[in-house]
Amino acid sequence: MSDEIKQLKLWTGNHYNEGIGRDDIFDKLREECGVFGVFNIPNASSLSYYGLHALQHRGEESAGICTVDTADNNNFAYHRGMGLVKEVFDKEKIASLKGDRSIGHVRYSTAGESKLANAQPLIFRYRDGDLAVATNGNIVNAPEIRKELESQGSIFQTSSDTEVIAHLIARSPKDFEAAAKEALQRLVGGFAFLLMTNDKLLVASDPNGLRPLVMGKMGNNGYVFSSESCAFESIGAEYVRDVQPGELLILDENGMREDRYATVERRATCAMEYIYFARPDSDINTINIHSARKRMGKQLAMESFVDADIVTGVPDSSISAAIGYAEQTGIPYELGLIKNKYTGRTFIQPSQELREQGVKMKLSAVRKVVEGKRVVMIDDSIVRGTTSRRIVNMLREAGAIEVHVRITSPPFKNPCYYGIDTPDRKELIASSRTVEEIREMINADSLFFLSNEGFIDSVGGNDGAYNRGMCLACFDNDYPTPVNEESDKSCSC
Amino acid sequence: MSDEIKQLKLWTGNHYNEGIGRDDIFDKLREECGVFGVFNIPNASSLSYYGLHALQHRGEESAGICTVDTADNNNFAYHRGMGLVKEVFDKEKIASLKGDRSIGHVRYSTAGESKLANAQPLIFRYRDGDLAVATNGNIVNAPEIRKELESQGSIFQTSSDTEVIAHLIARSPKDFEAAAKEALQRLVGGFAFLLMTNDKLLVASDPNGLRPLVMGKMGNNGYVFSSESCAFESIGAEYVRDVQPGELLILDENGMREDRYATVERRATCAMEYIYFARPDSDINTINIHSARKRMGKQLAMESFVDADIVTGVPDSSISAAIGYAEQTGIPYELGLIKNKYTGRTFIQPSQELREQGVKMKLSAVRKVVEGKRVVMIDDSIVRGTTSRRIVNMLREAGAIEVHVRITSPPFKNPCYYGIDTPDRKELIASSRTVEEIREMINADSLFFLSNEGFIDSVGGNDGAYNRGMCLACFDNDYPTPVNEESDKSCSC
Amino acid sequence: MSDEIKQLKLWTGNHYNEGIGRDDIFDKLREECGVFGVFNIPNASSLSYYGLHALQHRGEESAGICTVDTADNNNFAYHRGMGLVKEVFDKEKIASLKGDRSIGHVRYSTAGESKLANAQPLIFRYRDGDLAVATNGNIVNAPEIRKELESQGSIFQTSSDTEVIAHLIARSPKDFEAAAKEALQRLVGGFAFLLMTNDKLLVASDPNGLRPLVMGKMGNNGYVFSSESCAFESIGAEYVRDVQPGELLILDENGMREDRYATVERRATCAMEYIYFARPDSDINTINIHSARKRMGKQLAMESFVDADIVTGVPDSSISAAIGYAEQTGIPYELGLIKNKYTGRTFIQPSQELREQGVKMKLSAVRKVVEGKRVVMIDDSIVRGTTSRRIVNMLREAGAIEVHVRITSPPFKNPCYYGIDTPDRKELIASSRTVEEIREMINADSLFFLSNEGFIDSVGGNDGAYNRGMCLACFDNDYPTPVNEESDKSCSC
Amino acid sequence: MSDEIKQLKLWTGNHYNEGIGRDDIFDKLREECGVFGVFNIPNASSLSYYGLHALQHRGEESAGICTVDTADNNNFAYHRGMGLVKEVFDKEKIASLKGDRSIGHVRYSTAGESKLANAQPLIFRYRDGDLAVATNGNIVNAPEIRKELESQGSIFQTSSDTEVIAHLIARSPKDFEAAAKEALQRLVGGFAFLLMTNDKLLVASDPNGLRPLVMGKMGNNGYVFSSESCAFESIGAEYVRDVQPGELLILDENGMREDRYATVERRATCAMEYIYFARPDSDINTINIHSARKRMGKQLAMESFVDADIVTGVPDSSISAAIGYAEQTGIPYELGLIKNKYTGRTFIQPSQELREQGVKMKLSAVRKVVEGKRVVMIDDSIVRGTTSRRIVNMLREAGAIEVHVRITSPPFKNPCYYGIDTPDRKELIASSRTVEEIREMINADSLFFLSNEGFIDSVGGNDGAYNRGMCLACFDNDYPTPVNEESDKSCSC
Repeated sequence: MSDEIKQLKLWTGNHYNEGIGRDDIFDKLREECGVFGVFNIPNASSLSYYGLHALQHRGEESAGICTVDTADNNNFAYHRGMGLVKEVFDKEKIASLKGDRSIGHVRYSTAGESKLANAQPLIFRYRDGDLAVATNGNIVNAPEIRKELESQGSIFQTSSDTEVIAHLIARSPKDFEAAAKEALQRLVGGFAFLLMTNDKLLVASDPNGLRPLVMGKMGNNGYVFSSESCAFESIGAEYVRDVQPGELLILDENGMREDRYATVERRATCAMEYIYFARPDSDINTINIHSARKRMGKQLAMESFVDADIVTGVPDSSISAAIGYAEQTGIPYELGLIKNKYTGRTFIQPSQELREQGVKMKLSAVRKVVEGKRVVMIDDSIVRGTTSRRIVNMLREAGAIEVHVRITSPPFKNPCYYGIDTPDRKELIASSRTVEEIREMINADSLFFLSNEGFIDSVGGNDGAYNRGMCLACFDNDYPTPVNEESDKSCSC
Repeated sequence: MSDEIKQLKLWTGNHYNEGIGRDDIFDKLREECGVFGVFNIPNASSLSYYGLHALQHRGEESAGICTVDTADNNNFAYHRGMGLVKEVFDKEKIASLKGDRSIGHVRYSTAGESKLANAQPLIFRYRDGDLAVATNGNIVNAPEIRKELESQGSIFQTSSDTEVIAHLIARSPKDFEAAAKEALQRLVGGFAFLLMTNDKLLVASDPNGLRPLVMGKMGNNGYVFSSESCAFESIGAEYVRDVQPGELLILDENGMREDRYATVERRATCAMEYIYFARPDSDINTINIHSARKRMGKQLAMESFVDADIVTGVPDSSISAAIGYAEQTGIPYELGLIKNKYTGRTFIQPSQELREQGVKMKLSAVRKVVEGKRVVMIDDSIVRGTTSRRIVNMLREAGAIEVHVRITSPPFKNPCYYGIDTPDRKELIASSRTVEEIREMINADSLFFLSNEGFIDSVGGNDGAYNRGMCLACFDNDYPTPVNEESDKSCSC
Repeated sequence: MSDEIKQLKLWTGNHYNEGIGRDDIFDKLREECGVFGVFNIPNASSLSYYGLHALQHRGEESAGICTVDTADNNNFAYHRGMGLVKEVFDKEKIASLKGDRSIGHVRYSTAGESKLANAQPLIFRYRDGDLAVATNGNIVNAPEIRKELESQGSIFQTSSDTEVIAHLIARSPKDFEAAAKEALQRLVGGFAFLLMTNDKLLVASDPNGLRPLVMGKMGNNGYVFSSESCAFESIGAEYVRDVQPGELLILDENGMREDRYATVERRATCAMEYIYFARPDSDINTINIHSARKRMGKQLAMESFVDADIVTGVPDSSISAAIGYAEQTGIPYELGLIKNKYTGRTFIQPSQELREQGVKMKLSAVRKVVEGKRVVMIDDSIVRGTTSRRIVNMLREAGAIEVHVRITSPPFKNPCYYGIDTPDRKELIASSRTVEEIREMINADSLFFLSNEGFIDSVGGNDGAYNRGMCLACFDNDYPTPVNEESDKSCSC
Repeated sequence: MSDEIKQLKLWTGNHYNEGIGRDDIFDKLREECGVFGVFNIPNASSLSYYGLHALQHRGEESAGICTVDTADNNNFAYHRGMGLVKEVFDKEKIASLKGDRSIGHVRYSTAGESKLANAQPLIFRYRDGDLAVATNGNIVNAPEIRKELESQGSIFQTSSDTEVIAHLIARSPKDFEAAAKEALQRLVGGFAFLLMTNDKLLVASDPNGLRPLVMGKMGNNGYVFSSESCAFESIGAEYVRDVQPGELLILDENGMREDRYATVERRATCAMEYIYFARPDSDINTINIHSARKRMGKQLAMESFVDADIVTGVPDSSISAAIGYAEQTGIPYELGLIKNKYTGRTFIQPSQELREQGVKMKLSAVRKVVEGKRVVMIDDSIVRGTTSRRIVNMLREAGAIEVHVRITSPPFKNPCYYGIDTPDRKELIASSRTVEEIREMINADSLFFLSNEGFIDSVGGNDGAYNRGMCLACFDNDYPTPVNEESDKSCSC
């Protein structure tokens, strides 16, 4: 609707950028939100502010916090807005969100004011009082549940599928906890849920554990929940464990109870979290992301060594892997590509004319570093190939004599139904092309993808902690839940 | 929640101010919104912008427009925001609201972001598509309908009672038009409704016609609807007639059909619209407001002549009546009180200390005009008396030797249930005090209220067009609908 | 440069609007700033805020306050910005401007950020410390002084002629007070000056007293200075006297000394202040503006009676005169024209197409009031005639059967050199046309201007206080200072 | 004055952050602005936008662009504002700055509106027309020149010392070019100047070449000038050469002439540009910054090897050196510290209470990476030691068993007079303490600084291109110009 919010964001490596131009939208995967919960800790909104700030890379377009104040009749308060956490909240707003419980959310994308209504946490008023919902992921069968609810007279305020869970709960004759459990059982997909009423906080992960969700503790009997563990480090909380697939945690005046609403047939953590989305200082299933990526780089070196002068990573997500590749091969690691991190929402994208003159948006090659060199360029994935081609050409124009592209994941061939915004299958370059065809399209001297087995080994590493239960559907078409062509792919949040 | 929105607004005379300080909130009645609809006219959003701008005095806190584009699959688009019409919309936003049908709304008051959700038009998605609702007034029995709906599993996004009509429609097995008719029949109160789906625009007035709503036409087969006729003049539309009590107009691809959903037992147009709320250039039931007020002033002069040197009106709502009083008595009409119209939302209210030093907020007496004079001060009503006392004292400090207060309405004794925000009965100064007691409290030399009969005659005037069907409940306790102490008084919009 | 600030403002009657469209710019005179000074009163910035707010009608485009804190080493602090006083300042900013002395300014017009530099008070750093200057009016010989200074190596930060006085002072070998006196003696024009250094506050009026400037007192030994006395009423200060032509007041740690820098050969207060610019609750030379305007209306009635049904004034500046005309003739005074006061800077002007459809910007005729009536329309002046023609036609379209235009001033024939922004002589409709020709152009049934003598008598009224020393150059071409075609006409502030 | 602008910024590595908290201000050096010039290229303002964006790390607090349009009478246009380039300018503003010549500026710090006046380019109007000045660096003898000018009657609009050059030029009887040359000869210090009049663009570097300034070309006969060469890559311009010490370039309708205003006795490029300030993709004196820093890391490894498990760099400025250290020693390079790049101006700093609870501002240690490890931590410098101590402790709390700090520069002992904001000598931790004392204070297991000779060799590298002419005064107290205790240290820009 408006041009204001035409930027999408990606997170890359040990830093993450503030936005890329529209034409890049279709060539990078987009993360689908982050959630953060606080239970039984004073100034919950303030902690949420810092927690969500640490999850900012998971969603830069809207932010929201809802609090419950047990010292004041379990009152609800909330604030949501478009923009970064630091833009949506100021001291006054945080102070006005009183309470010792909260749930918060960052969201990756939207389009204009009319979508502020979709910013989470969603807030509902129903029979038993207030209900707030924050989620990360996607409910595959939301459209059919929604249709069913509408036929029964439900009305929806948002286009967000997340709203269906609130209606399922409100329509149930059972009490909130039982109703929520029943509602969760109806949902198919990959999701992490935080549900808060005046009395209770519920925390749930989907039956395959597709989307990450971790639990921490803080102070006396205080709990925190987060999409990624990096938020715990930033607020001084202690990591306890990952929320398990099919698990349902109930927190109220009696403390926390651990329950489950589904049996787990297959654990299937999203592989792209390890490859691309999560911050390098987060751990998922106790595996550190930076370390996993470095192992991917090493594995890639073992699988596809090439004689070259320097190794460089596409900032920011491929930095760790590039370091690993360099370490394994002994080829020096260099900053051959550099990113301007000031580029953000209000940045004026260069016109076509300026681009042709050579004005670059945010990534540029470092001439003195790459000139006359044979370059190994590490990247995390190739979606449509247009960005890869642009970067390869950028390196060549800066004087690289050879550009060897190494990808730290297997070819991305199939769309995601669990909360990652992917183009249609036919637009995925790897869905219908050989590696050699892709290499030619991106103008590389050579191109290798990490093997499925190599990737799995890299994530698991040597620490034996990992049970290999990942969702690799985007690579191998083996979806952990039923899906069909009509299934909803767009993110529920 | 925030201090930003601490101003309330009143409309007065041939101009209207932008806001008064918080302490005045409790001593002035507040209008409860304005609605504006467009059917079958290109660039409906642009017309709505100018129409709502003309209704701005009815609500200064939020504004919204929703459009349907019959040239593009009857698509919905909408934008709402906090602030004046000119603040909420810019050219780009108006241009993005494409379509030839629209409903718009201005709202008088809210408190913080969390209430942006209450800004109208409310937007719902239900079985049959999109539904937008804009209303002015109050549904007396909304709380009980809401409770009933919640017990059946409905969830509410807003605290606005307006939402009940959407739920009633969505839950009905009938088609939209029949469902809406049935829903309207369940509502008790005073209201003007604009309901728009992808296919239809419905326009309805409550069974007593409490809140004003007029119909106009423009261009070929185009219709416009407005809370007040002044908006027609400002957009160049032609007034057709007032929407009648209990009437339901249906506008769709077949044009307009006139129907009714209720029989009218008593017409009861809100008396305060004539006295205080409406713009002087509006007509209600074909009676011009300025002219009616001038007649009130003349009638007041006949009922309560006093020998004095000048007549002055409290700006802006009492200007017309003061002119009438002066004309009738021959006492010169003077600008003895003047208002600073720049005072608005962001204006810093003077601290108590500054007030004691004499810093005035927005109204001041003109010393040279009132010094040494016996002053007749015309005002429209006395709610709690604090403002009246302040103005009388202001005139005395500026040198007035006598201040005779004349009120252009009967004593305001009873709360309103139909969309005007009034304090509790016990805080209404006239509910428990004699005129002499009030006179003493406001420090006037004399005080007269217009008689009920005198008021009724003034509104009717000499043109015989008026059938005297007004709601005078605030004066005579005769409510046109059932109400009880638990009835909802707050505005539904 | 930018479209944002394309609105100009006029003040009219007992209310004043927030802006008119660009096409009106050339048909209304624009006021040229207001100044406000505080000496020896705690929280001077806060008082200035309220004082400038009362002078807002004299300049709506920028505002600024500079303070000196005698309790903290006579430190300077200042803040300036584009917009209304309430927009430029918030509580935090006012609180940060500490001190017991201040000068402030409101400015009528500018064009884009690059002109923020021109917002006053202008601040300079020179040999003896800080110097702040606020002015209202125009220095006729500024261009030649500027040229002389530049040839000596002076550089200018602004395009404002006000800057010349600072350079003259800085280059003088004498002390500040003597230097300022000498500098003032070099200036030709109409101006009110407030000059503040770390040690002193100087207040000066031009040798003919063209621009208004009044002195008040407040508290113990506190003084206030203002372009208009209405600001005193709004802050609770007591009017003392008008600053006299050629007078120079020096306020410092020893209190106030009265001096003069020029002998007065002719007092020549600007006539348009009485007619159009000043607020009706201000007094100039002890004459109340509302009362003077009412006398103009009465005098006009005596000079040009016409048989009619109603009298109406063009809001806001002609309201007082219309009341006077009605009182004198016995023809009823009515609100035949009404103005939408919400129209302001961010308001979207209707497109040409919408205007042709009938969308009105801000003024509209009240059909029920004027329909079938013979209307006397009172206005303050005719500059180019386009606005008058538009209003006359608006009345006719609303049903007026006759429109008789009566102007409360003589024909405006000559440009102003003293701080009022007037078009070139050839664009002034009265400079080359007979009254009959003008009548025809504006489509009126009859047209009369107030006579020069009638105007002078009206201002003087019956109170004998007025010595008739006005500048009527715009009517009679008799300029109180030397001017020539090259003289600077644009406002110095 | 206001809290809004309490953040300062530092640039680090291949990314750079948006700001750190106030308490860090005193422990990090701050860069002092960047300049960017365009000559004879259409849409100069647009190129300046992208060029300044690439220099954003040199100044995040204000930005400004001034253009000359040779196609329209050599008209000046300019816009300046507080904030990042992307915040200060939008499409409309860039479009309104018409012309084919421009100078632009980014500035690192200021405090409130009153300092907007100090935002560059400074604009003056003098005898010969308009003059715009943008500078990076500091004029050591500005205070005495200013005093002399003031005694002659000059007045200053800003507190910026840059203004003296405009006064010197304006007071000279010679023509602009000769006057500018003479003025430059009077200045002592380190500076890069862009001076633009309606007719000419002048480019000058100080006689020792302390501050970087490079020349590039673009299109036909177009020239660009920039503080750093990275801006050329981002706009597609071609690097030509560094502007030489004492050089003066004159660009006008006849093209570019190369002149000099001073003989060079000693080239003395600021060492801290290589170590800390410049972007890794910039070249200074043809030496690439990333490569130089990597050599510093290698040299440091040779001088101070320590047996450890991992090497980590403090992001962002020490990443390159850490890579070099790892490469030289074979110890793995890891992301042991990670920075949140979203932290910026509007970010709410955690309260003391929250910090004690463990809430971190923007840097955090990656537990899984450092736990149980002996860590080599590479940083660029130690100013007061407080930040170093905090980071060392952060690593220890995350489980590091040893922390060995290695600094890529010699001890910082002496303040800078050439445009870098340094604390007083007594607050520089190395000015009065031994390395062992510092080690103890920062709680490190070992601490080494790079030797002077090692540093010089590292910058020169193996390419023989470098003549070793650096200013190392902060390390060795050998200032290239006269300075004394009274000399102005604050940045002129």
